Amino acid sequence: MSQSTTTAPVDIDAVLAEVRAALAEGDWERAVTLIESLRPPDQADVFEELPPEAQDQLLPRLDLEDSADILEELEEEDAAEVAARLKVADLARILDEMEPDEAADLLGDIPPERAAKALAKMEEAEEVRPLLAHADDTAGGLMTSAEVLLHKDMTAEEAIAYLRSIAPDTETVYYLFVVDEDMRLVGVVSLRQLVIAPPDARIEEIMDPDVIHVRADADQEEAARLMSRYDLLALPVVDEDGRLLGLITHDDLVEVLEEEATEDIYRLGGVPEEQPIDVPVPAALRTRLPWLVLNLGTAMASATVLSVFESTIARIAALAAFFPIVAGVSGSAGTQTLTVIVRGLALGELDPRDGLRALAREVLIGLANGLVVGGLVALIAAVWKGTPALGLVVGLATLLNMLSAGIAGVLVPLGMQILRIDPALASPILVTTITDTMGYLIYLGLATATLTRFS
Amino acid sequence: MSQSTTTAPVDIDAVLAEVRAALAEGDWERAVTLIESLRPPDQADVFEELPPEAQDQLLPRLDLEDSADILEELEEEDAAEVAARLKVADLARILDEMEPDEAADLLGDIPPERAAKALAKMEEAEEVRPLLAHADDTAGGLMTSAEVLLHKDMTAEEAIAYLRSIAPDTETVYYLFVVDEDMRLVGVVSLRQLVIAPPDARIEEIMDPDVIHVRADADQEEAARLMSRYDLLALPVVDEDGRLLGLITHDDLVEVLEEEATEDIYRLGGVPEEQPIDVPVPAALRTRLPWLVLNLGTAMASATVLSVFESTIARIAALAAFFPIVAGVSGSAGTQTLTVIVRGLALGELDPRDGLRALAREVLIGLANGLVVGGLVALIAAVWKGTPALGLVVGLATLLNMLSAGIAGVLVPLGMQILRIDPALASPILVTTITDTMGYLIYLGLATATLTRFS
Repeated sequence: MSQSTTTAPVDIDAVLAEVRAALAEGDWERAVTLIESLRPPDQADVFEELPPEAQDQLLPRLDLEDSADILEELEEEDAAEVAARLKVADLARILDEMEPDEAADLLGDIPPERAAKALAKMEEAEEVRPLLAHADDTAGGLMTSAEVLLHKDMTAEEAIAYLRSIAPDTETVYYLFVVDEDMRLVGVVSLRQLVIAPPDARIEEIMDPDVIHVRADADQEEAARLMSRYDLLALPVVDEDGRLLGLITHDDLVEVLEEEATEDIYRLGGVPEEQPIDVPVPAALRTRLPWLVLNLGTAMASATVLSVFESTIARIAALAAFFPIVAGVSGSAGTQTLTVIVRGLALGELDPRDGLRALAREVLIGLANGLVVGGLVALIAAVWKGTPALGLVVGLATLLNMLSAGIAGVLVPLGMQILRIDPALASPILVTTITDTMGYLIYLGLATATLTRFS
Repeated sequence: MSQSTTTAPVDIDAVLAEVRAALAEGDWERAVTLIESLRPPDQADVFEELPPEAQDQLLPRLDLEDSADILEELEEEDAAEVAARLKVADLARILDEMEPDEAADLLGDIPPERAAKALAKMEEAEEVRPLLAHADDTAGGLMTSAEVLLHKDMTAEEAIAYLRSIAPDTETVYYLFVVDEDMRLVGVVSLRQLVIAPPDARIEEIMDPDVIHVRADADQEEAARLMSRYDLLALPVVDEDGRLLGLITHDDLVEVLEEEATEDIYRLGGVPEEQPIDVPVPAALRTRLPWLVLNLGTAMASATVLSVFESTIARIAALAAFFPIVAGVSGSAGTQTLTVIVRGLALGELDPRDGLRALAREVLIGLANGLVVGGLVALIAAVWKGTPALGLVVGLATLLNMLSAGIAGVLVPLGMQILRIDPALASPILVTTITDTMGYLIYLGLATATLTRFS
């Protein structure tokens, strides 16, 4: 993780201060000039800091293209709020300038009646409408419409002339997909291949007929994994008959990767659903509180164990000092194992069929951890409390619980994977419950069987 | 997280079985044909499953380009092992076929004498040698050499003819960087702009002179963030005088993003250093065991608190049943807060200057969590143990510890960020120590002050 929070080639705070000063003087022209001098992500960063009234006044004064860029770059919720305050006619004109996939996403985030009205006024509605039909987290939901398609019977020269004539302004042009009469995807030519091919070569001769593609209803992660694995700049999306519906572009790949990483990090941290950092408190509670209540339920397992051994604790209260170690440090070991297994599954580096090998490794690691940490704890306990027998019990309990931590850390996420439950979501709470409960059970069981006889 | 472990358009296991069958019959030709029919990442997946002798026999029989692809796609350690077993002359020929940045990375992973010998035999040594000078985790360490550079005085037509003449086979050609006489970076033209420009337009007229670039000694994350923020397919790397040294390409961006996400996930899970899933047990222990020993040290804080209150525990052993709840569930709440803050900092969505606002939010959330969970715990304790006073103490302790969890979950990672220590690395252990120790302290303190008077 880096230490700097934003990396922009411009000083956004300085520009923001200037824009604010211009607005305070009512100098709209200067504010507009300042914002238009920035690159889109920086424009959005400045824009989102302005009060709503200033945003509403500024947007219609900006170039349509800049307005479109800003709505594309704003956080989803912020863009939806700005869009909700625009006049429908203004909104439609800006949507026409946006990339079709971004326009479709924004339309999905505003109230349906308003979206319908805006669509009715859009010139490019026919490009955006088909994109609205696909669920957000599918390949279809990520794709944008393919503006430039080649036919297999064109020559390289004709294709280049065609590109020049339509002067496409999108990034989707680095890979040109080739279709037949029925719009079925039959090949791909990179712009590079086109440029370096003999001018009279037919597209069919220079294209690669073996195109990696994805069905519209595939999971967005499936699409991201294909793009990342095969280093694709664009991934064509097809329907069940192989007809080309659209393209997923590399900027979507980066977004999906960050989204999925954030989802895993959140879930491993006990936050079941990703939320923006400035989510309102009630929404944050709706996500987090049920998880804590569930946690309370699972903690009752170890509470019960502790309650069962109440008389042992009453007789040897010194035992309590080592609860955080027997249960806690093994819990950390379980989390380590869990982390490695969950990430391995997520990256596709661990095949569930290799589960036994992973289990053997983690049991060995648990044994070694247990011998070292258990030995240290035994020593600490024996010296601190002056009772070698207590040291033995604490050390042995730690060793055994380290083993159960290693086993649980492997079997729980693998089991979740087999049950098709996200291991990142369900495993941490279960592994902690197991290391806690097993820790108290082994420790207090051993103590009851041995120490209470002599005390 | 997805449930499928690999997404490949081919059935790798089936091809692997066929390759193995061919090898068993000594049919090298068939094995070679099978592997050459695959795409590079799939070739590597099949290759890495073969025994070393088969790998060593196969590699010289494959096309040089396929051999190069396989070494590029293998995991770093696996590629280094294969390279270590190759004849130096064979290795040099394969390195010549590899992308310069991949060749440099591989040379960095094999013993220095061997790398020097291979370099001495390479034809493209002069392209690779400058890349070796940069640290792995810097922008310079990611870059590859820029094969195609335009001069600002060329015309669009000359530039296209030049591209055709050298027929570059790299992906680095979608953005063409423009230099002056001194190799200083002065602009960028996309291949798209070049293709759609009037043939006689001078490069200087169509290029964008405002190029986002990065210094060779910048952190690799800085480079990744610029590429992700500005949707760049290639990022030029310059020296202190603005001379172009090389390019970072989009495949590196994807790799850095996955690497950084994995690093954060590992660190949050108490594994300080990323390792391949099949790392040998001793190496795994070297990373994980010191962390557990550190954990043991911090756990001594709560052990001390428990020890101080030994006489209270001896008198009211029923108190122990609620240890996992007062300390554990608040610990989970602390982890939730920590997760949100650490990820917000990593993604640049949380500015440390907004720390106070974040603190206020999380204290409010802690208060609400504490009221609900504390209320539930109080009820459980009162009903289960039949002692309303115990319920009150447990509930109040939970409420107060939820507040300390919220505060620690914000202040610890922000403090680490300010101290320039990775919050993902250092925060979890500290936050857990705080919620554990505070939990026992508040709970047993309250119990001692109230309950022991009446029991």
